[in-house]
Amino acid sequence: MTEDSAYQTLEHRFKKLAVLGGVHRMLHWDSQTMMPVGGAGDRAEQTAAIALVRHELLTDPSLDELLCRAEAVDMATLNPWKAANLVEMRRLWVHANAVDGRLVEALAKAVSASESCWREARPENDFAGFAPRMGEVLALVRETAMAKAEALDCTPYDALLDSYEPHGRGARIDALFDRLAGFLPGFLARVIEDQAAAPAPLALEGPFPIDAQRALGRRLMEAVGFDFDHGRLDESGHPFSSGTPGDTRITTRYDEADFTMSLMAVLHETGHAMYERGLPAAWRYQPVGEAAGMSVHESQSLLLEMQACRSRAFAEFAAPLMREAFGGDGPAWEAENIYRLNIRVAPGLIRVYADEVTYPAHIMLRYGLEKSLISGDLVIADLPGAWADGMNDLLGITPHNDRDGCMQDIHWAAGAYGYFPTYTLGALNAAQLYDTARSADTDIEAGLARGDFKPLLAWLRRHVHAQGASLGPAGLIEQATGRPLDVGVFERHLAARYLPSSSAAGDY
Amino acid sequence: MTEDSAYQTLEHRFKKLAVLGGVHRMLHWDSQTMMPVGGAGDRAEQTAAIALVRHELLTDPSLDELLCRAEAVDMATLNPWKAANLVEMRRLWVHANAVDGRLVEALAKAVSASESCWREARPENDFAGFAPRMGEVLALVRETAMAKAEALDCTPYDALLDSYEPHGRGARIDALFDRLAGFLPGFLARVIEDQAAAPAPLALEGPFPIDAQRALGRRLMEAVGFDFDHGRLDESGHPFSSGTPGDTRITTRYDEADFTMSLMAVLHETGHAMYERGLPAAWRYQPVGEAAGMSVHESQSLLLEMQACRSRAFAEFAAPLMREAFGGDGPAWEAENIYRLNIRVAPGLIRVYADEVTYPAHIMLRYGLEKSLISGDLVIADLPGAWADGMNDLLGITPHNDRDGCMQDIHWAAGAYGYFPTYTLGALNAAQLYDTARSADTDIEAGLARGDFKPLLAWLRRHVHAQGASLGPAGLIEQATGRPLDVGVFERHLAARYLPSSSAAGDY
Repeated sequence: MTEDSAYQTLEHRFKKLAVLGGVHRMLHWDSQTMMPVGGAGDRAEQTAAIALVRHELLTDPSLDELLCRAEAVDMATLNPWKAANLVEMRRLWVHANAVDGRLVEALAKAVSASESCWREARPENDFAGFAPRMGEVLALVRETAMAKAEALDCTPYDALLDSYEPHGRGARIDALFDRLAGFLPGFLARVIEDQAAAPAPLALEGPFPIDAQRALGRRLMEAVGFDFDHGRLDESGHPFSSGTPGDTRITTRYDEADFTMSLMAVLHETGHAMYERGLPAAWRYQPVGEAAGMSVHESQSLLLEMQACRSRAFAEFAAPLMREAFGGDGPAWEAENIYRLNIRVAPGLIRVYADEVTYPAHIMLRYGLEKSLISGDLVIADLPGAWADGMNDLLGITPHNDRDGCMQDIHWAAGAYGYFPTYTLGALNAAQLYDTARSADTDIEAGLARGDFKPLLAWLRRHVHAQGASLGPAGLIEQATGRPLDVGVFERHLAARYLPSSSAAGDY
Repeated sequence: MTEDSAYQTLEHRFKKLAVLGGVHRMLHWDSQTMMPVGGAGDRAEQTAAIALVRHELLTDPSLDELLCRAEAVDMATLNPWKAANLVEMRRLWVHANAVDGRLVEALAKAVSASESCWREARPENDFAGFAPRMGEVLALVRETAMAKAEALDCTPYDALLDSYEPHGRGARIDALFDRLAGFLPGFLARVIEDQAAAPAPLALEGPFPIDAQRALGRRLMEAVGFDFDHGRLDESGHPFSSGTPGDTRITTRYDEADFTMSLMAVLHETGHAMYERGLPAAWRYQPVGEAAGMSVHESQSLLLEMQACRSRAFAEFAAPLMREAFGGDGPAWEAENIYRLNIRVAPGLIRVYADEVTYPAHIMLRYGLEKSLISGDLVIADLPGAWADGMNDLLGITPHNDRDGCMQDIHWAAGAYGYFPTYTLGALNAAQLYDTARSADTDIEAGLARGDFKPLLAWLRRHVHAQGASLGPAGLIEQATGRPLDVGVFERHLAARYLPSSSAAGDY
């Protein structure tokens, strides 16, 4: 078998893997949107069967040999996309083969029990009841991390991170987060002071009928460029984005008393969907044709939601549509008031409700704690106390209970250690990408004010979406923006939006 | 490896096959109800990948050896369900292994092209455009039939039939259909004469809002016993039933001008769903735990729709609910009038709109033609003419075009030769089962008049649903009704319903 035929065989196998990954996501989407409660048993069997087939594909003994043969070619002579595809194939292979089947199965079972336990224990604020299940998952995740660390030649935490942020390493995140930690507390204090000094924005009075919310959401999705021939908007308990590039499915949840939360979730998930839809068609179903990890994925949702759609320009476009949708009238419905509502800052206990300024604190807290849990420096019994201390240090507030403290997220119950930092990496990526885009095309921000997202989308399609995973997350940002990721643009963005007078004075 | 451990391994493998079959059905359900048009490309890849994994499971070289070892045990000493499970496993193995991968793939591709062509050619009435694609499929189906005939030791047509009616053979169908053919034409003429002699039932005046139709459909599904914790009702181009026993999903289509068509489709598909839901939980995911083929499946939909819900008793229960749902008033909305509307007979060109009396003619026509197409006695170029002649012979009407003639169904385009007879076998099964059930429990029919389906369901659960595939279709009917399937009960049912005075006179 030649290198080339080995490579062709690999493409064939990884296509099957990717297609079955799409099946898995459709089943997940269905279970969150359509499935009746009693379908959970059959669905668990279905997702387990698909996961097993995918695991078998990646652990087939012949795969290593195929990879070795394909890798034997001089990489410098190879089409760079093929070379990058091989690198991603090998990364997926290492993740799947570093751990034996027994551990994979044990972790899957522990996660299943732990998620169920979390769903019951969280509303009851029963950390003591949840801790043993969380401990079982953590022990197996640590075992996984150590096995992968050896295979990937990195720290155990980095081995977990690598699943969500390919080739990402904690040392780089530490440097970025340290810089943020030095900036944010003082900045937050000034923003709160500044906002308190001005009259509060006027509240929008509901109720806001759900049909009208849905229609407005679809109207704005269309403005962004979402193609309903290739996607859907539905409802679920928590907003999410799923599906495949040809069939992107996003969800939101509705609250008759407040439409902005739901609408911003729609725009956020639309950002994810536009990324999937824009991935390179020529590399569809190949590892290199997929998204460049979660921090770039999150950059696309946050760029749309936070950078573009919480801007003053977008409020000018959206305010008349909101008035029309809900029969709104008066000063509360003016664009400037809606803009001010959209950028309101207030420390809070819950990550998913956090504003752009306080969100990184939620992430830095979790990042530090999960690193300590993986290293063994922190034991689960001490987690609630460490959480409370951390919240107090970072945001000056303390949770009254574990439900709104260390039990609020499903991630650790689900074994998803290493995921949290990608949210804030995503925010930094988004700021740096949007800054570059606006400099490259001045019509991007002007377009938002008239609801024209084409200039923005054209830039993102070319510099982000069409790159797939060919450059890796760090390489993508560096190529798209001309320099490695840093914190400066994010800081300047926050300053310009939240302390406009200081910013104008060059304070930041 | 002992016989017992071989059997255990087989159960494990066939469970995976069944679970992945459930995945396939969920993807199909989604593509007909939820999927945006642009998702078709990704979906085709997904269903092909699942089909391939399932085919690989069945053609794994070790499977024959496992089956031989498990079959080596004295079957008489084996638990009868295990023995029946082995028989079904072997049947599935024979079907999958009789044809080589090249033929399976060629047929799948030809079917895909032919279905697409049919969707375009049928509205255009373009038989000449469709014929070449139909011919490609037919040639590959004949090749498949001949290969399977050798493996199953039966005729090529029977080898196709066996996929839908396990262990079914054409000779038995010929005997049943010959008897029907001798009875139906004269009977139909008398029914039409009889109905023409009486004043026509009064039409129900719409429009009937779709929300009200949906609510009424759900109300009646609940009365039947459909559990919405384990199923859904949705909309699709053609009504169908899919999903898994834990998550049964049915669909209908709505027409604001006529609610009865949609409602009867709901009840028909509910019959299918109740069967799936009632399959033996102890044998879930095993071949013997599945439905006993399509003629028994269709018996459950037709028993509910035709036998139970077009009865006078059901009209008494449903008429007030219909009045309430649509604000109906006056003599047209009386139970007796609704009953008479539900049993109106009229020869027509389209199978899916046919009434209970003329439906078998549609099936006998297709059955005869497809047997000739498979044997080679009929070539595709002669199909339109043969169809027109057959329609004229059987129902005294002639299609004006091929769209409403030989191109009206997707079955042949999809390569589903051997499927059609199961519709009429289902009608015969339904009549014989319902007759036995009513004799066994006189509260079954009385229950319908008050919307109480529990007595009927209890009988079906025990004698049909809980049997799974353990007895095979013919064995199931024989055990449930005490005798082999014959045409007599169906004839008496038609006579009692459509010629009540003659029936009372013992004419039938």
